[in-house]
Parts: sequence; structure tokens; C-alpha cells
Amino acid sequence: MKEITGGVCAAKGFKANGVHCGIRKNHAKRDLALIVSEKKASAACVYTTNLVKSAPIKVTKENVADGYAEAIICNSGNANTCNANGIEIAKGMCALVEEYTGIAAGDVIVGSTGVIGQPMSLEPMASGMPELSGGLGIHSDLAADAIMTTDTVRKEAAVSFEIGGVECRIGGIAKGSGMIHPNMATMLVFVTTDCAISPLMLQKALSEDVKTSFNMVSVDGDTSTNDMVSVMANGLAGNREIDAENEDYRLFCQALHTVTVKLCRMIAKDGEGATRLITCNVTGAADEDTAKTVAKSVICSSLVKAAIFGADANWGRVLCAIGYSGADVDVDKVDVSFASSEGRVHVCRDGAGIDFSEELAKKVLLADEIDIDVELNSGSGSAVAWGCDLTYDYVKINGDYRT
Amino acid sequence: MKEITGGVCAAKGFKANGVHCGIRKNHAKRDLALIVSEKKASAACVYTTNLVKSAPIKVTKENVADGYAEAIICNSGNANTCNANGIEIAKGMCALVEEYTGIAAGDVIVGSTGVIGQPMSLEPMASGMPELSGGLGIHSDLAADAIMTTDTVRKEAAVSFEIGGVECRIGGIAKGSGMIHPNMATMLVFVTTDCAISPLMLQKALSEDVKTSFNMVSVDGDTSTNDMVSVMANGLAGNREIDAENEDYRLFCQALHTVTVKLCRMIAKDGEGATRLITCNVTGAADEDTAKTVAKSVICSSLVKAAIFGADANWGRVLCAIGYSGADVDVDKVDVSFASSEGRVHVCRDGAGIDFSEELAKKVLLADEIDIDVELNSGSGSAVAWGCDLTYDYVKINGDYRT
Repeated sequence: MKEITGGVCAAKGFKANGVHCGIRKNHAKRDLALIVSEKKASAACVYTTNLVKSAPIKVTKENVADGYAEAIICNSGNANTCNANGIEIAKGMCALVEEYTGIAAGDVIVGSTGVIGQPMSLEPMASGMPELSGGLGIHSDLAADAIMTTDTVRKEAAVSFEIGGVECRIGGIAKGSGMIHPNMATMLVFVTTDCAISPLMLQKALSEDVKTSFNMVSVDGDTSTNDMVSVMANGLAGNREIDAENEDYRLFCQALHTVTVKLCRMIAKDGEGATRLITCNVTGAADEDTAKTVAKSVICSSLVKAAIFGADANWGRVLCAIGYSGADVDVDKVDVSFASSEGRVHVCRDGAGIDFSEELAKKVLLADEIDIDVELNSGSGSAVAWGCDLTYDYVKINGDYRT
Repeated sequence: MKEITGGVCAAKGFKANGVHCGIRKNHAKRDLALIVSEKKASAACVYTTNLVKSAPIKVTKENVADGYAEAIICNSGNANTCNANGIEIAKGMCALVEEYTGIAAGDVIVGSTGVIGQPMSLEPMASGMPELSGGLGIHSDLAADAIMTTDTVRKEAAVSFEIGGVECRIGGIAKGSGMIHPNMATMLVFVTTDCAISPLMLQKALSEDVKTSFNMVSVDGDTSTNDMVSVMANGLAGNREIDAENEDYRLFCQALHTVTVKLCRMIAKDGEGATRLITCNVTGAADEDTAKTVAKSVICSSLVKAAIFGADANWGRVLCAIGYSGADVDVDKVDVSFASSEGRVHVCRDGAGIDFSEELAKKVLLADEIDIDVELNSGSGSAVAWGCDLTYDYVKINGDYRT
């Protein structure tokens, strides 16, 4: 497997574009993205578990019910959620795709992200469609830009891998910075691949993948109403189609996971206001579920997040978060260390503090990417979760998001 | 029932004091509190559900196992949690009480609050005991000061009420500002009453009370390792002892709830860095549990908290928090309004936005105490939860708490 560039256009037969159509006032900010496949693709999606669901999610569910899709349209600047005419708008977006590309409206995945409960109109999108569809090309970057909200960096990832001697590619783009605490699905993530795989196996691969990728990310504990991850597989690589859980399937899952984990880390690191990526690695758990519960509790703790912002080795807060996680843990066996490119500092053994160099700890914690390693000494279950620090800027960004 | 002053010394036969003994470096900050009853009192406690528990909690559990207690000692500046010699220190604190007051060490409730996992010694407390015990008097204020950590205001409340024509009093003090998300018990709260009530009924009253008082408060979602609420009832009011769930018991529960809710509001309002008290009132739920789940989800949402800090009527975040709460809610029936001393503004009806005056909303949300009223239109269950806004100062306080 090899990392490559190209994001959502890395795989054969996918084109993309992103333009400013006017949903956002800022003319420099693209707000409408389109991704199309050269031919109809197997499609799989996972969605937010929030009971309040965006209209685009409801429409997408209908459109991919048959296991296939051919295009994605997505706007930023308005979540199209809790709007009286939400369904009409989401369906209207699909109809615009049909009008300008010939792809059937029923084969379109539609997404929206932005403020909840704001009135929305099709007009800006209708006026932007000629430029958007006319400029379709190898422009993953423009599509990635167009779906960003408070994101500060574009999020793209792609790899190439071989199946039966045939080169396949898989790549994706993502947006996500606040209201990030996915459960089942997450944020907006669009993945494309030219690998031939049946809709059934593609959905299975995605549903399994999110459990250890997007569902292990949290920025602020708020599960969005608009979370969605979709994968389109158009088969243009020419490999024999994956239609069972065989070795090819495992290779595909591995490639998918490489891309999704990379996007997860990008999303967590670009959490609203964040200055540091926090990775919590839990090992020695009685089972994987215990490890996941503990890892997620640690990266979700406001106090742990604030301590990391202050580069303060306040490990007691890590123990506290483990203790209230709900996982069945023997707290007297817990070891904790902090690590980064600057080194490693052990701070807690058998659930109690040990002497450590505050100077080394400060150095370790001032790096951009911090690992909190928790060894439970009770088995072989392990898990990884990603989060970010809690900063003044998170509060600033969210104290007046609507204006 | 009548609000009175006097806090933990409002009831007959209770004396208190608080001194600076040297656990904290700041000489102006009292760090050791003592509360004693004139006679042995019925005692009830509830504790944190965190698996990591402070040593004082373990020792208190032993000491009140027989249903009685006569004194409370509590320090701030060190949580006495995850310390190798924690139990020894906590028992040593009880022994100091016995040495200086004659009250048996086994009748002492002991509490600690501060940093987790810091080495601790008995020395400062031993040296402070002569002044602490020598100065016992009607000094609820000094005891309340001594248990504060990042608290910015002293927390006391008391009421008088009548049982069978006899005047009884109940009052308490509390500390709690960060790591506040109690589950079963909470923070440090010490309540005293001269009402005569059996240990069994007292425990029952307290255990019921916390479900709708302290368990409905959250500052930051972090359940502390040291949470504890205790009530001592010394019977000096002279009422007939409450030993069954009769009318007297109901009167007592009412008085207890008045005091605990007052303390809850004080704790939430003084949440670390907070500028506003947020009260979420949920009505029309299918049942009380649903209402509680929804209310707590709303006050725990970082995004709702940040919006209130910014006086931004971003009601979509309230809907979002209701949607991911886990409660079974028909989101298309939800009405939301914001209210304060400045008025009321309806922002959402039947799960969708309605036109409202942004000017009025801003005025309402700039008040000190904000109500978020959620009507689920699905039954008669209701609940109230208390929280606070999320501010720059929360991050600042917790970015470097240990120094």
C-alpha cells in the first residue's frame, strides 16, 4: 500500500469541483461541491445516530437504498436541518445535478453542513451549477475546500493498493471541526475508489471501519445532526469484483482504514480552536469494548483537554476520566504515560503517582501531537481514540458562530 | 418554610470553623474546615460513582456505616486521591479530631478536595488543629471558605420549617466549581439539621433528593473522584423522631430539597470561569427519566454552553443536544424558548425554527440567569437541570490548575 495524492479524485473515473455560489456571504469561500463518477458505483453510507437528522440525510438514505450512486453534491453554510422545506431543498439539489450532468437525481448523495434551523433557498445553488458542473475535473482540493466550515485546513487522503495484481486506488475528503462526537457515522466524509466491490461488501466494510475510525474521534462531545460518511466504488480499476469476505476484501478494508484513520487524525487535529492532536492509546484491557470506552472517555474529558492545552501533566484527570468512563477497570492496576516526538514521561503506575521530571513532561506536552498511553494490565484488548485540546479559541468560535 | 441565614450552623447544636493550616501556599486562603455537633447525629452520605475514589470517601463509608456521626473535617488543596498513603492520612485526620475535640475518630466524616495524585502529609493539619478546634463557633462562613478551591463565592443555604408545631432548621455549605458532573453523589456538600430523624429515613431522604438536585448539575462533564454529600441530623429541635415515610418525612424532604437546590444553583452559577447560570426546564416528557436525560444533555453540551456565553440564540444546538441525548423523543413536536429576567423569546416550534426578534433574544440572553425551556408535548414528565456557560476563563483555569 502506498500513500498517493489526489484525494477524492485519486481513483480512476472520479471528477470533482467546488465553487462559491452565494450561500455564504464571504466570496472567497467556496460553498458548493460536486463529485461525479464516470459510471454508476456501488455506494455505502453511514449516518448520524442523532434523532434530529438533516433533510439531506433522509434524501440520501432513499437514494442509496438500492446500493448504487453516481454523484455527490454538498453545500456548506447551512445545515438544512430543522427547516420546514428541508426535504424539498435536498431533493432540489439532486434535481440540479440531474439537470446539469444527466446523472439521475435518484443516484445522488446529498450533504449539507452549517447552521441548524436557518431558512434555505435553492437559488444560489441553481445559479452556481453551470460553473460547478462546467468545471468538473481532477479538483479534489476545490471540493474539499467547498465543504469546509470552521475547518482551517483542507482534509484529503488517498492510497493505492493491489488486488490480484491490479492496482486500485481509494481516496477521500472530509470536513469536521466542531460538533464532532460521531456515533455510528460522522461528520461529512466522501470516499471514492475504483476498486470493484459489491454494494453489500462495501457497506459491510464501511460499517465495520467507522467503529475504529470516525466513531473514535471527538472534538466537543456534540453528535451532529448531519454526520455522514459515504463511499462510492466504481470498479474502473478492473480487479475481480469483491463479493465475499475473502483476502481481497481484507486488503480493501486495510486500504479503506488507512484513508479513514488519516482523515480522523486530520479532523481531530483541526478541531475548533485546537492547537494539539491528542491520541489516547489504551492497551491491556479485558476486551476491545473496554479499551474503546476508556480511550474515548479520556479524549472527551474537558479537564484533560484543558490540561493538554496548558501542557500540564495533570495525569490525575486521566485517572478520573478512566474511573467515570463506565468501563469495568481495576483502577489500582493502571499505568499512564505521556509521549510525543519530544520523548516519553511515565506519570502513574498501579493507579498511583510516581516521581517524574516536570521539565521533561512540559517538553513532551508542548509538541503538536500528544499521545496519552494507558496500560490497564488486565488483558489484551486495545483501542485508539483521537481528540484535541480545549482552547480559548474553541469558546470564541462557538460563542458567536451564527454571525 | 422560611429562608434563614447561618448555613451549616443554622440548626441547633452545630458549630464550625475554618483556618489556613498550610496545605495551600496562599496564606489568605483557609484550607481546613471542622464542623461538630453537640451530640451524636443520624448521618447519611452519598458518594461519587467514579471507580477511582478518594481515600477520605473510603474512610467516611466505614465511619458512617452504623448510621451516626458527630463531626466533619475537610481540607482543600489536595484531593488525597491516588496517593500511596491516602487511607493513613484520612484516618489521621479523624484521629486529630478525636485528639482535639474528644469526638471518637470513628464518628468523623472526612473530605478532601484539590489536585489528584499529589503527595500529602498530616503535618500542616496537625499544626492547624489547635486554632481550628479552639475557634469553633457559629462560623459556617469560615468553614465554607475553607473547603473552596476554584470557587469564587462561598456557598451556604438554610431554611426553617415546622414539624408537629416544632421549629426545625436545616442548612448546608458546598464547594464545587470544576470537575462537576455528579452521578449518584456530588461535589462536597455538608448539610446539618436539628430535626430528629432516624438514620434509615435520613439516608432515604438524601438518596432520593440527590436524583433531582446534585445529580442534575454539570459544569464540565467530569465526574470527580471525591464527590460526597453528607447530612447530619442531631435531633435537638425536639420534634418527634421521623422514622417512617409519613407527613413529617415529606415536610423534611421538602426542606432538604429547598436547601440542596439552592446549593445546586450556587454551584452551577459559580462553575469554573462561568458568567451565567443556565437552567434547563423540560416539560411534557413521556416520563421523568426522559425529561432528566434531555435536560442534562442540553446543559452538558459544550456548544450550547458556548452559545450562551456569546448570548447567541443558537437554538439548533439545543435541538441537536436533545437529539443525541439517548432519550426517546419525537423531535418534530419539540418547542424551545429562552427566558430570563429580561423576558422570553420563542425560537422553535414543532422541531422547526420560527421567526423571532434577534434583538429581544440578545437582551434575554445577556442576563445572569438564563432558562432554556423545552416542551416535548408528549406527556407530563418534567425535570430541571443546572449548568453554566463555557468561557475563556474555564480554559484558562484548567490549562494550568496545578501551578
